[in-house]
Parts: sequence; structure tokens; C-alpha cells
Amino acid sequence: MEVRKFSIPEILFGRGSLNYAALCANRMGAEKVFLVSDEGLEKAGWVERVFSILKEEHLAWHYYSAVNSNPRDYQVSEGAERYRQEGCDVVMAIGGGSPMDAAKGIAMVASNGGRVQDYEGANRIQRPLPPMVFMPSTAGSGADISQFAIITDMQRQVKMSIISRTLVPNISITDPQLLTTKPNDLIISSAIDALSHAVEAYISTIASTLTDIQALKAIDLILNYLPIALQDRSMEALEKLSSAGTFAGMAFSNASLGLDHALAHSLGGKLDVAHGLIHPVLLPPVMRFNLPTCVDKMAAIGEIILGGRRGSAEATAQAGIERLEEFFSNLNIATRLRDIVDDPDVLPQICEMAVYDTCLVTNPREATVEDMIDICKVSW
Amino acid sequence: MEVRKFSIPEILFGRGSLNYAALCANRMGAEKVFLVSDEGLEKAGWVERVFSILKEEHLAWHYYSAVNSNPRDYQVSEGAERYRQEGCDVVMAIGGGSPMDAAKGIAMVASNGGRVQDYEGANRIQRPLPPMVFMPSTAGSGADISQFAIITDMQRQVKMSIISRTLVPNISITDPQLLTTKPNDLIISSAIDALSHAVEAYISTIASTLTDIQALKAIDLILNYLPIALQDRSMEALEKLSSAGTFAGMAFSNASLGLDHALAHSLGGKLDVAHGLIHPVLLPPVMRFNLPTCVDKMAAIGEIILGGRRGSAEATAQAGIERLEEFFSNLNIATRLRDIVDDPDVLPQICEMAVYDTCLVTNPREATVEDMIDICKVSW
Repeated sequence: MEVRKFSIPEILFGRGSLNYAALCANRMGAEKVFLVSDEGLEKAGWVERVFSILKEEHLAWHYYSAVNSNPRDYQVSEGAERYRQEGCDVVMAIGGGSPMDAAKGIAMVASNGGRVQDYEGANRIQRPLPPMVFMPSTAGSGADISQFAIITDMQRQVKMSIISRTLVPNISITDPQLLTTKPNDLIISSAIDALSHAVEAYISTIASTLTDIQALKAIDLILNYLPIALQDRSMEALEKLSSAGTFAGMAFSNASLGLDHALAHSLGGKLDVAHGLIHPVLLPPVMRFNLPTCVDKMAAIGEIILGGRRGSAEATAQAGIERLEEFFSNLNIATRLRDIVDDPDVLPQICEMAVYDTCLVTNPREATVEDMIDICKVSW
Repeated sequence: MEVRKFSIPEILFGRGSLNYAALCANRMGAEKVFLVSDEGLEKAGWVERVFSILKEEHLAWHYYSAVNSNPRDYQVSEGAERYRQEGCDVVMAIGGGSPMDAAKGIAMVASNGGRVQDYEGANRIQRPLPPMVFMPSTAGSGADISQFAIITDMQRQVKMSIISRTLVPNISITDPQLLTTKPNDLIISSAIDALSHAVEAYISTIASTLTDIQALKAIDLILNYLPIALQDRSMEALEKLSSAGTFAGMAFSNASLGLDHALAHSLGGKLDVAHGLIHPVLLPPVMRFNLPTCVDKMAAIGEIILGGRRGSAEATAQAGIERLEEFFSNLNIATRLRDIVDDPDVLPQICEMAVYDTCLVTNPREATVEDMIDICKVSW
């Protein structure tokens, strides 16, 4: 095996771990916390809960919630300006991928100056970031674990991937109780986001022994516990989904992603499609496209999906993808591209932009614009 | 699940990763590295290799090798004194558990003052340590990953367990090529050390989903690849053993250990028995002792050892332990306590000391001195 790196935050995991948020910030030297979240978390009462936890620990804070789904470059700039004006010293985020990615962007621009655009791509951040303490409220984005931040460039209508070890938060606090206030559709879309992280990381060209076991465990947990979580919303099932999100985050942060995410970022940037809705549509055809270059690994995924092998490696892989499509269908979610995109004529442009996405570099099979257009046609 | 933490270093893994040692030290702000190793590594040429890597990166260093197997309190004090005198700023270690544990002790005393004894037990280190970059040369101790340091108190003849998050090195660089210069007996003893870490972490009272998958993977890899590594010494097999050491380190650092290690530390402190020789003797009877309190988990271990289940959970667990004993026998290593201890009369004293070992706190079944004496009798 070539040299591979594996870097993750310190993780606090389990029911009630949220209570340690202020203690963790304190340990990072906090005097004034910059807290990022959004309306959904406010309504569910979690932001108020964090306020009181910070208060108990005698910490000051500034609260910032001007953040969209698919967070935007100007929201990051505004946040960084506020961070500096308010004299904050630790960045905290509670929420899904959007507030967490925005918080990463804010930490980056506040400490390194310039605009988000200056850091697009891999390893372009020079100066250290303020400490980051992140509390994920969905079991999917992995932004609390990963070295990725995805921010939309509004002018170019592109979701920029920013990848740097310094974007790995210092501490991830995963309290599965946060999932109890999420509706089923969000549980589904974030679990499938995590599933796509795990699948793409597992077949990535820079996957390693260290990332493979986390990826396979995530796939296993999501397939087994997502249906249960939707049915009974038991703490046990939500906890399993949370740990799946963490494992998938460990895997993709260190093994990166692939074609499905390159296309998803492009669709998200151009059309503002919610990230989690895209994978049930694109992941199966992308898996079929990649299959010839990684039959054994796709068979290992198939074996988990099917609960056993079906003859040859290729047969197992193929049957696994089919079963995955059934799994998505049974969740009553959009599984065709036409369900989430209005105009098919925009697709060639989407594919042309996806070619430049950093995630494509580690896809196991080289993909041209034409290949991607074919995948979109198949998914339409 | 209760709140659990999971903290590991940044890991560089793979053939040739050693070449990044100086770069990593540089990233930690090094100007003068305090390098700890021992005679074995010198003879194999690895210390010279590290010198030249440091030189290429224009880093100064001070080399310290006055370290035993079962490293001693005065060696740590001397090392800390030298660290300060020489004006070093980063601690680097290359070697097995002994040089790495000594290096941790040195980092701790150099920055926090006092003597090693002041920090015995859990969470007693107050001030931050200098950055630590560790390169393990055996696939077993996990000292490059863990928050443990084990140092012998020479006066009390006790191996002290020092446990603190600040003892997790900043960077672990695991280059499986270092194993190529190790004799088979060291490959065996370190692999079985890792196996015992994995087994004890898996059944620990503070095990979690996050540590369980690493523990099971370590067990699986060691049972499958240790015999191959001994036979063909192929890079692939050595690499698998290295990754097993890393996984076991991740597991036990965060889930801690149990009765087998409490006894092993006591034996090592009193009689200076090499740590790796003790587990083939004590692990099976300790597993039998613990079995009633964790049948399902012991069955999961049995299933890996046997490659399948044998009827009930208890039958599978029992058969697994028996097969493990055969596995040890086939390695032609000492499997009876009388092979490694001269005088049985010392055993009650060993057991009385073991009661105070921090590792015992997380053993799944409470163990009295009498229980431990029984285990020693069975193993004699």
C-alpha cells in the first residue's frame, strides 16, 4: 500500500454528549464562541439548548444563522466579518452539512483572509484556523468529521470543494438525540448521503485498509437501520444511523469521493438542488459505470446489500446495485432525474462543470463529459 | 449508549511513510527534535535512516537511547532533563512500545515537571505536552496511537499505567517496512500483544460502536495474517499485521483494557517479564473467567477465530477460546506460566498488586485477588 493518511477529529459520541459542548470549547481556550446554526435547529429548540449550555460554563457567544441549504460565498464572507468584529475565538456549529460547511468557511476566511474562492481545491489553506467544535444534527453530511467544505460560488453557480486537513474540526460531538426532532424525509436524505459517502470512499483510488472498514460498516448500518429508524424512530436505530454517519465521514474524509459527488455538486451549484435528494437518483447508475474497474470491491458492497454472494463477483455486484435501487424505491423517494430537475437541456452544462470537481480525481474509472451525459440520460 | 470519546492521532500509514518523519516534525514547529530509540533499531539501521531524514529537512536533533524493555522511571527523568538541557521542541520515537512509552514519559515530565509517579492513573496531566511524532517498529504496542504510557516504578517494582488524552501522539507514522528487520519471535509477541489489546478493548465496560469495529478487525487480521507473515514474511502480510496493530491501538486507547493487562503489568513490574510473552499464557484463562458476563461478545470473537458459529453463543465462545489456545501452541511459544515465572510463591503478591492497576476498572467481570490467584494456578 502506498502512503495514506488518516485524520479525524476527537469524537464525543452518545446520548447527552451535547452537554459537553461548552466544556469542549473551554478546553480549546474559548472566551467568546461564534455559534453557527439555522432556523430548523432554532425551531426544534436545540439552539436555545446550546445557549444555556454555554451560559452554564460562563462563555460568551455570538450567534450567526444567515445560512442557506447549499451555503453561499457571501454568507461566509459576512460571517467571517462578524467573527472578527465580535472578537470570537472558537467556531461552533450545530446543524446539518450546511451550517457546518458555512462555519468551516467562516473559520477559514476569518483566519486566512481573502474570499472562499481563494481556497478552492486541495491543500490551499496556509494559516491555522480557530478551533472548531461541531455538533451534527443529521446523520449524513460528515462535515463534523471531514476535511471538506462545500460552498456555492453564486456568480459562477458552482459548488466549490475546499479540501484541507485544517478543515477537520477539532472536536465532533455527536448526540443522536438531535435526530429525534428531524422529519423522516431528512433522516432518509442524510442517511443516503452517508451511504453515498461510504460507497464512493470504498471504491476511491486512494482508499486504504484504514478507510475500508469504516466505509463497509457505514453501508451495513444504514441498510439495516434506516428502515427501522423510519418505522419506530427508536433511540437505538437513530444511534446506529449516527454512528454510520461518523464512519462514513471517517472514510470519505480520508479516501475522498467520486463521480456521484462531482455530479451532485454540479447539480447543487447550478440548480440549488438539495444535496441529499441527488444520490438515490445518481448513485446506482454511477456504480454501474464504475463496476468494470472495481469488480471485487463492488462485490463486497453487493454482499453487504444482499446479505450474501450471488455466484460470481460481477453477478454479486450487479445484484447488489439492483437491490439498492429497490431499497430506494421502497423509501418512496425520487429516483429519477426528471423528478428533481425540470429541464433536461441543462444537463450537458452540468456535466461540463462536473469535470472540474476535485471529487472526480479519485473516481475509480475515468469519466468524460459524454460518459456523464449518458449517466444522466439513463437516470432521466 | 452512554457518552464515549474516540481520540486518535493523525496517522500516516504505508510503505515509505517513514520518509515523511522530518516533514511531520517540521509541521509541528520543530527546530530541534528529541529522538528516542534503542539498540535494536540502531543495529537494524533505522536510527541512522531517521538521522538522514532529519538532516535532509535541515532539522537538528538530540538522540536518546538509554531505554530498557519495560522502561524505567529514572530513564524518563534523565531523558526529560536532557530534553530541557538540549532545548528540544518536538519528541520523536522510533521503536517498539518501550522507546515510545519512555518518549511519552519524557514529553510529560519535560513539560509538566515533577516525576513520572506524579501522573500515575487517569487524567492527571495538567499542562500541554510538546508535539510527539512516533514511528512504531513492531505491530503491537499501539503506543503510537494510544493515550497510555506504562513506566516501571523501580522502587515499588510496579508498572505504572499513565492514561491521559494528552498522551495521544500528534502523528503516528506506521511504515510496515520496519517489520522486515524484526525476528519472528518479536513479530509473534507484538502481534499477540495487539490481539490481547483488541480482545480486552472489545469486552471492556466502556467499549463503544466506534471501538468495536476496530477491535474485531484487528482480531481478524492477526489470526489470518500472523501465520502467513511468519511463513513468507511478505510485505502484504506484514502490512496487514501493521494495520491490525493500528486498529487494536484505536480500540484499546479509547475503550481501555482489562484483567489480562492488569496481571501482565504486575508481572512485568515485579519480575521484568517481557510484556509480549505474558498474553499467550494469561489471555485464554482470563477470557474464560470473563465469559459469563459477556457471552455474546465472546461469541463474536469466537466466530472470528473459528470462521463461523458452533451452536449456542456460549458454545461458540468456548470453542473460540480453545482454538485460540491451539493457535498459540502452533506458534511454539510459552503457553504456561511456569515457562516465564520461576517461583510460584511470588504469584499472590503479583495478584495483590494487580488489583490496583487502572486497567482492571474496565474489566467486564469484577475480579478479586483470589480470582486472580485461581487464574494463575490454572495457567501454571
